[in-house]
Amino acid sequence: MAAKVWNRLTMGVCYYPEHWDKSLWQDDLRRMKDAGITVIRIAEFAWNKFEPREGEFTYDFFDEFLALCEKEGMQVIFGTPTATPPAWLTEKYPECLNARPDGTLLRHGSRRHYNYNSPKYRELSARIVEKIAVHLGQHPAIVGWQLDNEFNCETNVFYSNADTEAFRLFLQEKYGTLEKLNQAWGTAFWNQDYTDWQQVYVPRPTIHDNHNPHQELDYRRFIAHSTLSFARMQAEILRKHIDKRMFITTNGMFGHIDNHRMTRECLDTYTYDSYPNFGFPLDGRFDPKELNDRKWSRNLTEVRSICPHFGIMEQQSGSNGWVTRMEGPAPRPGQLTLWSMQSMAHGADFICYFRWRTCAFGTEIYWHGILNYDNRDNRRLQEVKRVSALMEKLQPVCGAASAAKVALLRDYDNLWDAEVDAWHRRLQDPSEKAVFEASQRTHTPYDMFFLHDDTQLCELKRYPVLIYPHALILSAKRADLLRAYVQQGGTLILGCRTGMKDMNGHCPMQPMPGLVADITGTTVEDFTFQSPAEAPVNALWDGEMLETPVFNDILRSHGDAKVLARFDSSYYRGEPALVENQVGKGRVLHLGSVFSLQNVTQLLRYCGVLTPWADTLELPEGVELTVREKDGRLYFFLLNYQSEPQTVVFNREVRSLTRGDTVCGSMTLPPFGTDVVTID
Amino acid sequence: MAAKVWNRLTMGVCYYPEHWDKSLWQDDLRRMKDAGITVIRIAEFAWNKFEPREGEFTYDFFDEFLALCEKEGMQVIFGTPTATPPAWLTEKYPECLNARPDGTLLRHGSRRHYNYNSPKYRELSARIVEKIAVHLGQHPAIVGWQLDNEFNCETNVFYSNADTEAFRLFLQEKYGTLEKLNQAWGTAFWNQDYTDWQQVYVPRPTIHDNHNPHQELDYRRFIAHSTLSFARMQAEILRKHIDKRMFITTNGMFGHIDNHRMTRECLDTYTYDSYPNFGFPLDGRFDPKELNDRKWSRNLTEVRSICPHFGIMEQQSGSNGWVTRMEGPAPRPGQLTLWSMQSMAHGADFICYFRWRTCAFGTEIYWHGILNYDNRDNRRLQEVKRVSALMEKLQPVCGAASAAKVALLRDYDNLWDAEVDAWHRRLQDPSEKAVFEASQRTHTPYDMFFLHDDTQLCELKRYPVLIYPHALILSAKRADLLRAYVQQGGTLILGCRTGMKDMNGHCPMQPMPGLVADITGTTVEDFTFQSPAEAPVNALWDGEMLETPVFNDILRSHGDAKVLARFDSSYYRGEPALVENQVGKGRVLHLGSVFSLQNVTQLLRYCGVLTPWADTLELPEGVELTVREKDGRLYFFLLNYQSEPQTVVFNREVRSLTRGDTVCGSMTLPPFGTDVVTID
Amino acid sequence: MAAKVWNRLTMGVCYYPEHWDKSLWQDDLRRMKDAGITVIRIAEFAWNKFEPREGEFTYDFFDEFLALCEKEGMQVIFGTPTATPPAWLTEKYPECLNARPDGTLLRHGSRRHYNYNSPKYRELSARIVEKIAVHLGQHPAIVGWQLDNEFNCETNVFYSNADTEAFRLFLQEKYGTLEKLNQAWGTAFWNQDYTDWQQVYVPRPTIHDNHNPHQELDYRRFIAHSTLSFARMQAEILRKHIDKRMFITTNGMFGHIDNHRMTRECLDTYTYDSYPNFGFPLDGRFDPKELNDRKWSRNLTEVRSICPHFGIMEQQSGSNGWVTRMEGPAPRPGQLTLWSMQSMAHGADFICYFRWRTCAFGTEIYWHGILNYDNRDNRRLQEVKRVSALMEKLQPVCGAASAAKVALLRDYDNLWDAEVDAWHRRLQDPSEKAVFEASQRTHTPYDMFFLHDDTQLCELKRYPVLIYPHALILSAKRADLLRAYVQQGGTLILGCRTGMKDMNGHCPMQPMPGLVADITGTTVEDFTFQSPAEAPVNALWDGEMLETPVFNDILRSHGDAKVLARFDSSYYRGEPALVENQVGKGRVLHLGSVFSLQNVTQLLRYCGVLTPWADTLELPEGVELTVREKDGRLYFFLLNYQSEPQTVVFNREVRSLTRGDTVCGSMTLPPFGTDVVTID
Repeated sequence: MAAKVWNRLTMGVCYYPEHWDKSLWQDDLRRMKDAGITVIRIAEFAWNKFEPREGEFTYDFFDEFLALCEKEGMQVIFGTPTATPPAWLTEKYPECLNARPDGTLLRHGSRRHYNYNSPKYRELSARIVEKIAVHLGQHPAIVGWQLDNEFNCETNVFYSNADTEAFRLFLQEKYGTLEKLNQAWGTAFWNQDYTDWQQVYVPRPTIHDNHNPHQELDYRRFIAHSTLSFARMQAEILRKHIDKRMFITTNGMFGHIDNHRMTRECLDTYTYDSYPNFGFPLDGRFDPKELNDRKWSRNLTEVRSICPHFGIMEQQSGSNGWVTRMEGPAPRPGQLTLWSMQSMAHGADFICYFRWRTCAFGTEIYWHGILNYDNRDNRRLQEVKRVSALMEKLQPVCGAASAAKVALLRDYDNLWDAEVDAWHRRLQDPSEKAVFEASQRTHTPYDMFFLHDDTQLCELKRYPVLIYPHALILSAKRADLLRAYVQQGGTLILGCRTGMKDMNGHCPMQPMPGLVADITGTTVEDFTFQSPAEAPVNALWDGEMLETPVFNDILRSHGDAKVLARFDSSYYRGEPALVENQVGKGRVLHLGSVFSLQNVTQLLRYCGVLTPWADTLELPEGVELTVREKDGRLYFFLLNYQSEPQTVVFNREVRSLTRGDTVCGSMTLPPFGTDVVTID
Repeated sequence: MAAKVWNRLTMGVCYYPEHWDKSLWQDDLRRMKDAGITVIRIAEFAWNKFEPREGEFTYDFFDEFLALCEKEGMQVIFGTPTATPPAWLTEKYPECLNARPDGTLLRHGSRRHYNYNSPKYRELSARIVEKIAVHLGQHPAIVGWQLDNEFNCETNVFYSNADTEAFRLFLQEKYGTLEKLNQAWGTAFWNQDYTDWQQVYVPRPTIHDNHNPHQELDYRRFIAHSTLSFARMQAEILRKHIDKRMFITTNGMFGHIDNHRMTRECLDTYTYDSYPNFGFPLDGRFDPKELNDRKWSRNLTEVRSICPHFGIMEQQSGSNGWVTRMEGPAPRPGQLTLWSMQSMAHGADFICYFRWRTCAFGTEIYWHGILNYDNRDNRRLQEVKRVSALMEKLQPVCGAASAAKVALLRDYDNLWDAEVDAWHRRLQDPSEKAVFEASQRTHTPYDMFFLHDDTQLCELKRYPVLIYPHALILSAKRADLLRAYVQQGGTLILGCRTGMKDMNGHCPMQPMPGLVADITGTTVEDFTFQSPAEAPVNALWDGEMLETPVFNDILRSHGDAKVLARFDSSYYRGEPALVENQVGKGRVLHLGSVFSLQNVTQLLRYCGVLTPWADTLELPEGVELTVREKDGRLYFFLLNYQSEPQTVVFNREVRSLTRGDTVCGSMTLPPFGTDVVTID
Repeated sequence: MAAKVWNRLTMGVCYYPEHWDKSLWQDDLRRMKDAGITVIRIAEFAWNKFEPREGEFTYDFFDEFLALCEKEGMQVIFGTPTATPPAWLTEKYPECLNARPDGTLLRHGSRRHYNYNSPKYRELSARIVEKIAVHLGQHPAIVGWQLDNEFNCETNVFYSNADTEAFRLFLQEKYGTLEKLNQAWGTAFWNQDYTDWQQVYVPRPTIHDNHNPHQELDYRRFIAHSTLSFARMQAEILRKHIDKRMFITTNGMFGHIDNHRMTRECLDTYTYDSYPNFGFPLDGRFDPKELNDRKWSRNLTEVRSICPHFGIMEQQSGSNGWVTRMEGPAPRPGQLTLWSMQSMAHGADFICYFRWRTCAFGTEIYWHGILNYDNRDNRRLQEVKRVSALMEKLQPVCGAASAAKVALLRDYDNLWDAEVDAWHRRLQDPSEKAVFEASQRTHTPYDMFFLHDDTQLCELKRYPVLIYPHALILSAKRADLLRAYVQQGGTLILGCRTGMKDMNGHCPMQPMPGLVADITGTTVEDFTFQSPAEAPVNALWDGEMLETPVFNDILRSHGDAKVLARFDSSYYRGEPALVENQVGKGRVLHLGSVFSLQNVTQLLRYCGVLTPWADTLELPEGVELTVREKDGRLYFFLLNYQSEPQTVVFNREVRSLTRGDTVCGSMTLPPFGTDVVTID
């Protein structure tokens, strides 16, 4: 549906008419248009503007504002206001509130303090959404709708009584009987058997806050289910009443949601809120050797996996920060442009800045918008105007697809298991970071690909190489899909602990890597975290060092499988660390460790997919390369994150879309400078 | 009223007759007198000694003890016992307890576990105070009264239901209508509007414990209001019944109190509890480059701003420490004297040690008094005797005023806003520390001056130079006062972010520095925290480096305002960092950054007020200088905080009050040694 | 009774028939036997297998399993299942749950979430224990019983209402009247007097969570009382029904229990759970200079003080770790043997591994057993078999006693006071660690000895030297015992702060060291923590440096007492730091500081007990020596904790029990290697 939504690169801004005197509205809209802004996102926290008291509905405020938008030709994305229930609501119906595990209710005064499962909140939310949809569903100024605001932002755990009630229903639906629940949750351990559904709760306070890990895994699936269900409720109401030309989206990307499924089932497009300045925190966490703002490219890669042509609903335009925390410096001149280009480089066809003017009161007086409190033109507004001109030059790129040839496989079961399981987490976090870093530093663009139950082989076959770092949880269905991928010519790279768990998080009584042992050609003979009492254990691969950090599976190879590298120290010195197995037209590489920048680089080189456009351009490490493709034409996005100029070398003639000229040989990107080039 | 209270330098000690067998009382009093102690502070935790069960009053215990005091000629400061409600009270009336934000009551077993607003606690407190006042109000042994003990010590936040009830009344009084409350609290942000007063609470648990910042600011004002109201209730009862020769005071100096107003409205004098040994904690926080025990001079400077001739109700005499925390070494020989002199150097005319003998049970067995558990004479008692002799020699100084020519401006609105606002806090804390450090290390004595609504220009005019580091919050009244000060010849130094907020903490839609822009001759064009990705940004001032740390306002000068210094790096290199503007007979210096030891030193030198007594004496950095003045005579206090001897050079002949002789040229202060000299 | 229990060195394993399909049982038992395992511990969490619903009892499951054990000749230790109450129980009777101080109940889902004092839990526990005892008390396969599992593991503090009720009874029993309670708790401080028993609680939330220290001390005694009472209840039920040949034990060693008394009054033998791999944590706490896994020898020394011939109910066989925390590496090849030998070296005559096969679900999927999930033979099973063979060779050692000549004195009053009192804790922790480290590094085996009210002089007289580091709490009875010990020839070493408190934790009004001043020949003139502002203060002893860290008692010697060492810096330079006093046939050494590796070594050397077997063998620091003695024969256990070989030198001919040959001169212990030698 994406094509329907973004036909051209479009610029927007978030606006809050309820924060300003009406006398400012017209001037604001005209200055926006003057800057190239054609869309505004509004109303996502404005419940009281429609229902100031329970059951009393009024539409005057937004009718007046939307009339002005229509008059000024400004397009509007309209938010449903359910992220901030009114004080009158939560005071009268505290059962709508979210709670801490000990039952303490999370009260009015922040945002997202509701739970998804309270019948009363569902009822009141459905009513306000329906009232708004009925009233505004055909409004000519409105082009799209945003559901709520940032589902699962602020918190992605829920402990209200309503959540326990809903969790029981979710589990009854999933398991049917308590016997099956007991089996799935391994309640034989520590005498945890349930004999009545009323004994089952969302995680509650326990000693050490230790909970059954299978319950915790199902609890995360339940939260995703709750969120989806709440989003679907709103989307269905909207669809009944809004004009067909309007789209439905939501914004942000937060935990404990199957964003892919939500997008597929409820949305027309997905939008992300991109704040790369979080990469420069004042709290002492800043590490100049890290990728900092460039790490947002990893988030954007995930967004692209959800929706190839997405939008940015909130693109950073000034310093971020709440009154209470998250202090950061102002974006440097050029960074607003850089980060806008970063979004487009990864597939964003809509860039909507947050926000027009910094709020003059409340928690977010330091979450700066384009304009400051003083409302004067400033350097940021100038930069927005330049981005606007840039976007016009880049219109040919609108709708172009990622040209990556490597994908990182992920699935929600393993992502959530790594939250529950500290051993899993110690593998997943560094490995996923390593794949991203290797991609960035070697200019090997990669995609993320999330395995779902309905994933088709053809989707995977687009990628010559797949990395699935630590698929502890595997299902037969997924193992079959991987087997087919490899048999048809794909290269699959797996790390340690693969195949250790089933879908419930139990450990099947079979040697690892379990369900994929037939395609890896390996058995895990022994395994250990690297000992803090020993030096790091590496491997030797054709006489060269291969990093094998954190955790080691000590492998045995079978059949024709070939040992590529062997551990070089500790009690398993000389044992296989990396095994390659030919399967059909493809192969599996099984690495008995966590991934690192070094070993991912070695593996991608071995697989022949490292730095795939080296023939066309040579780039310093400090410049990011992404490649988008449309109608057979490649667009190379070059992004300099450094405060120093960087030199790029083109080995063939390319044309710069931003400047119009052609270049061959070296070119200098200024500090924070960007370009997009293509080969004619 | 101060003169009335302390006619001569006086020495006291805290005593707890209820902790000891009566057989010890007489010996204790006689040994005190032998050491030069003429006053004791008693009874401040002894509620049960008057009302062992609800409504049963008895006076025998203290009657007996006070008779002995009268007989022995010992003067008594008598404490009201409301800091420790009895077990029977809080068990029967748990509504009197303070609570955590989640409602958990803070129970019996510690101290100060009550709230100020419970009607029942008000009633029971009023009754016990009245009973005691009626019974002892004319007692010949009593010279003064202490209200409660250390208001807002242990905690300065209150979350009981009674506090919410009182907060609503406070807000109704302040705002009249909910509409005005909603406006003042900016409830348009995040849909926080209140439609019923019952929806308004003291801060409650929210997600991230994030609260409306304007509510938080008012909440602090409310706590100050509650404390004042509770203190006033007690003071008014006492005044009705006590002899006119007796004074009323309270002790300590803690947060969320307008101590100036409380002193003005309720007290005859203010006393402070001084424990400089906290500067040597065992928990690893000790930094030998810090000012450590000398930092208590900063507290004493604040105390002096509340009450120029104050007392020390609890002066450290031994190691501090609860059973559970705050472990520290024993004060070294000489430090008891040094810290007593530190108090007098800053204006204390009464030194009352805590405590006569270390308690043998309870939480404070390590909060050592003069004597140890064993009750033997010891080195500390010897030192007290020497201080006693010293005080006799210093009697001419009693009532002398501070001779500082520089003042640090402060106001409670900005102090409390900096608690609420992390951005503000990152400015205020280092700047205030820098002013103190520069004062100490350059021997430029300074005062603190708190702006209140009724501050008069004549009060400010005593100071040729005022530093008001980060007056984010400004009112028109305060801006007018500053303007008048400057016009009449004063020099006003302002730092970054001045004028950013109004009294509610909203950001007015005007360029900074807002209400004082006319006297600074500046506009803030852009602003940013210094980026962790960049090297520290400094400025150049006539070719010399000027530190401009933490946060930068990038200034523009107007009219005749003169750019003194420009930033030397980052994207705003070359932009104005320090602007001077002549206004009437005076001038404003606007610095676009936080203050540091280096830049405060530079600014004070530029203003001609650095090291004002350099002609008279030359001091090493390790010695503190304070100067008191009386009847045209200056008294120079010299305090050596080092464990090594320090050499002082007198450029003219001075007379030592402690030794009686005259000196010219160099003199050695022994380790922890002190002296007071004057010029005849 | 120990001899009755362990007649020979025995190997066992923990097994959970309820975790596995019945089809695995026989194979498991047979493979165990094949490995030399003759005993299994079962059922300690299996309440639901007997009582799946309230009042419905069933025995089939364990009847079937025990029949198989009988058939296979496997001996069984049977656990009472009270550590994990069923979900039906805690859902219906939440009063059985433990709670946080704020009253939040600790819910189902972990283990040990019950409290000892709920009448309902007592009733249900008694019933299930009785039902099992009646049904299985004569079962031929059962050889012993384990009470509950790891009393006071997970948490050793209890805050339920039932605990408050029981605490009041405990205090009424102890004090009789509130007047006496008030006196004992020093309630005169901070007006804490109780006037009704209903005002008395277990510690509740207070400001700073600060509580009356005397209450806290009694609260720990109360927990020990509760645990003992609960254990006794179970033991008495069992004794009524089980066969006389069966023994009763419990496992683990956790806080707030008088394990000595519990063992004496309720058990036939004591067993410990030994997990030395906690010495290699992944969380960054690992310090390669520390003793790491060797620190478990300190725990085993404590276990030996409780029960000289104990068992290990859970001996580490694989990596430890919950899903949520405590990640660790796999034990290296050889460490399983090393740690088994470590247990035997300290007196264990029974080694029962945890567990047969790693659990495939639940919180402990990473608490690895001998076998992995895949159930294949592995290196750990091979190593168990080798340990089995080794144990046969070591059978002569069974029942041998420790030959240590030095003991560390301890008592529960001081141990618990050091938890309550941060000043005490800063002394006790480093001193106890120092004694252990000096013992290990100088090969001076030591015992721990716990003083109880019924300790007899003859028990102490076994040790020529006793170290009682910081007996802050002393009773006249204990002082008398120490006096008698010294008079009859013993050497007693005391550290700073000795004799500072009475049994209630009050500080008597007498000079330190109080009740033992007559035998130390000293008075403490002054005292101080070492100041962070000064360099560490040491002493000089005959021209050599003696460490005197952390806290200094500045001593004065009396009578014939001799000053051995004097402080060398700070204000007490030249004052006595170490005083020796001859008393009767013995002597007391009073050190005015905390103990350190250096000063303990110096003191033991001075007392002539350092490295007592140096004539026989010379050992590198990395090898532990323990010596057991039986029928006049010494057995030297040599344990190499290093991953490198270590060389031992025998100065006389010894015979290796493990290899059978004799050695003289040097011998190499392989990495993690061990041996036991004797002199023929």
